[in-house]
Amino acid sequence: MACIVMKFGGTSMAGTERIRRVAQIVKRQADGGHEVAVVVSAMAGETDRLVQFCREANPLFDPAEYDVVVASGEQVTSGLLAMTLQAIGASARSWMGWQLPLHTDTAHGKARIGSIDQGNLIASMASGQIAVIPGFQGMTADRRLSTLGRGGSDTSAVAVAAAIKADRCDIYTDVDGVYTTDPRIVSRARKLKMVTYEEMLELASVGAKVLQTRSVGLAMKEGVRVQVLSSFVEDGAPPADSLPGTMIVSDEELAAAQQEDPTMERQLITGIAHDKNEAKITLTRVPDEPGAVARIFGPLADANINVDMIVQNVGRDRGETDVTFTAPRSDLTRCTEILENQREAIGYNRMITDSRIAKISVVGVGMRSHAGIAADMFKALSGRKINIQAITTSEIKVSVLIDEDETELAVRVLHTAYGLDAD
Amino acid sequence: MACIVMKFGGTSMAGTERIRRVAQIVKRQADGGHEVAVVVSAMAGETDRLVQFCREANPLFDPAEYDVVVASGEQVTSGLLAMTLQAIGASARSWMGWQLPLHTDTAHGKARIGSIDQGNLIASMASGQIAVIPGFQGMTADRRLSTLGRGGSDTSAVAVAAAIKADRCDIYTDVDGVYTTDPRIVSRARKLKMVTYEEMLELASVGAKVLQTRSVGLAMKEGVRVQVLSSFVEDGAPPADSLPGTMIVSDEELAAAQQEDPTMERQLITGIAHDKNEAKITLTRVPDEPGAVARIFGPLADANINVDMIVQNVGRDRGETDVTFTAPRSDLTRCTEILENQREAIGYNRMITDSRIAKISVVGVGMRSHAGIAADMFKALSGRKINIQAITTSEIKVSVLIDEDETELAVRVLHTAYGLDAD
Repeated sequence: MACIVMKFGGTSMAGTERIRRVAQIVKRQADGGHEVAVVVSAMAGETDRLVQFCREANPLFDPAEYDVVVASGEQVTSGLLAMTLQAIGASARSWMGWQLPLHTDTAHGKARIGSIDQGNLIASMASGQIAVIPGFQGMTADRRLSTLGRGGSDTSAVAVAAAIKADRCDIYTDVDGVYTTDPRIVSRARKLKMVTYEEMLELASVGAKVLQTRSVGLAMKEGVRVQVLSSFVEDGAPPADSLPGTMIVSDEELAAAQQEDPTMERQLITGIAHDKNEAKITLTRVPDEPGAVARIFGPLADANINVDMIVQNVGRDRGETDVTFTAPRSDLTRCTEILENQREAIGYNRMITDSRIAKISVVGVGMRSHAGIAADMFKALSGRKINIQAITTSEIKVSVLIDEDETELAVRVLHTAYGLDAD
Repeated sequence: MACIVMKFGGTSMAGTERIRRVAQIVKRQADGGHEVAVVVSAMAGETDRLVQFCREANPLFDPAEYDVVVASGEQVTSGLLAMTLQAIGASARSWMGWQLPLHTDTAHGKARIGSIDQGNLIASMASGQIAVIPGFQGMTADRRLSTLGRGGSDTSAVAVAAAIKADRCDIYTDVDGVYTTDPRIVSRARKLKMVTYEEMLELASVGAKVLQTRSVGLAMKEGVRVQVLSSFVEDGAPPADSLPGTMIVSDEELAAAQQEDPTMERQLITGIAHDKNEAKITLTRVPDEPGAVARIFGPLADANINVDMIVQNVGRDRGETDVTFTAPRSDLTRCTEILENQREAIGYNRMITDSRIAKISVVGVGMRSHAGIAADMFKALSGRKINIQAITTSEIKVSVLIDEDETELAVRVLHTAYGLDAD
């Protein structure tokens, strides 16, 4: 018998018919003798509808009241799932964030989870009752409703799993696992049995939108085993204990699994991700002196613009350098306005922007012990005449900027080069 | 400076534009120096939508989970009104039923209010903050969400007014007060400045759907002064302190007001109501013996059928009697089925049903001190050849059953006969 947290997103909860399907998946786990908690999102589209109401009511809405409004979406689906479970013969009840309570800080609209009072929850689950918990919501110290920010339900699920020391946190999505790359681009992409937290974090940060980054970070910190799997199973659904998703685990667990099962072959590279949502900005002939870089990125940070890659070339001329960085495309206009205003203060010569770029990243814990991964990447790309505009690396990731038009070609070339293609 | 509770129904809260109008009405009171709490309904149609979800999810839904789902409608409007008030420069915050808390019993879906912890609310209002409270919802002793049943927001408003000892509870509706009769039937109907709780109770029970009966009963018990007025005021809105609605007050306050203002003429009869939602059932030749009536009405009560008028004629033949009563038309089929099954046990001869009837009621506290009101009614009706099928009386009400086709004629005849027509 295991203790399992299951999480279902907005697409899975969109309407009473889909909720019935979710109820069947949940009941199958409960019938398998497991203790089950379910974390649910609002119906797809509902949070957008509620946010729109808030914008109409007050463009500068009070985040505390915003939370009162938008938290209602998950309240509705959790009540509906509890009664649907009852309809098919399962014992179930809903637990609002304030009923547990799930404590958060007071950063309304993007609150962080502090702790969860798990006592009542554990007792209820031990008695055989399925706990249905609205994702995305919690309660502040002054007993007001709070929400965790968009996509926060993944984080709720991981936090609940950590609090009740669940054996597993199953995140049901509209894909059936984590793939070596986007299967819409590479038909021979393979589903991964296991990835590590760090790999998942790097993949999530570069465009693989399977899980919310925050939830992966929390799972890593708390050691929660997370499984990604699909809620859209066919009628011949698998039995409860052989679920075919991707497990997200620690380095140690991965190593142990590989020792135990030698057929579970691991490539050096785990996955290849792409991201078309960034734009590139280059400032030429920036004075190569202490404080120059701070004068560029300080104002951008003040404007809440999330700068990603930063590349500073060695100056060709003594005392000057070029600075290139990327930022979200949606922020490009604000970005250039700010930098125009700072032209005097920074002292650059020209500003060159390009929004037709893509970031391609190769990710894998195998990089730690193997040299030459980056070199392989550059060789494979240059073999197809794909020009690399910038490079950054982390311990387990290499990212390059290329022309947007070459995105799919680059992903396919690298997928083959690293031996990831399925047979 | 007064302490005022204002309540707005679903039509007034239907959409952000209407909520803005409500916010202006509320702010006008706050700007007048008053302490203000506002109780709101869900957007018109929203509760129906949520109830429909519940029916789809589980036809035999758990009332506790039903409450989780349907309480969300008022949560949304209270958050939206609070932020809209802020948008026009007022200080405001929302208080969920569980935050106050507003304690109820555990009769989910039709809970009764126990008490309200008014401390935080009073402190917040004293600091100049407008309190926005979702109607219809509360919390049970085991900290679960509860709702008061359809139309419960009126009751919430009166309960809040009683808890904070408000000077007045203003119920904003889509009519601008209580009239001597339905103005759609009698164009010369007059708006009443004051009615007593008992008159309002009698009027509400016979089809004047201005206020929920339960809320009037609670106001009477707690001595809350209730005002009915319209939220659809014209642009030249009246100043905050001369609101033109109908006050619902105690007998003593009415008497005092009449002494103070001799121009406030009161007729013997306050209002005339009609109700077309009932059906008439007659059982002939029922044995005139102890327990016979119990055998008729016991099974109907068990089936939750709300029997209204009951008339038992003196038996024409020794040992037998005819029993006539009314019940909601929507229950007529169930009613006749039950009585068919009980034919042997009751021992009646024939069952005669008629759903084309109307109940006409004249109501007024003046009846207590004046004889002949009923006689006047019968005379006025017979003068227009309107046949009376049954009669019941209470201390301040006389009701008759007539043919449904004569409803409007009867109302007009009586309105004139009792001198209620406006000049």
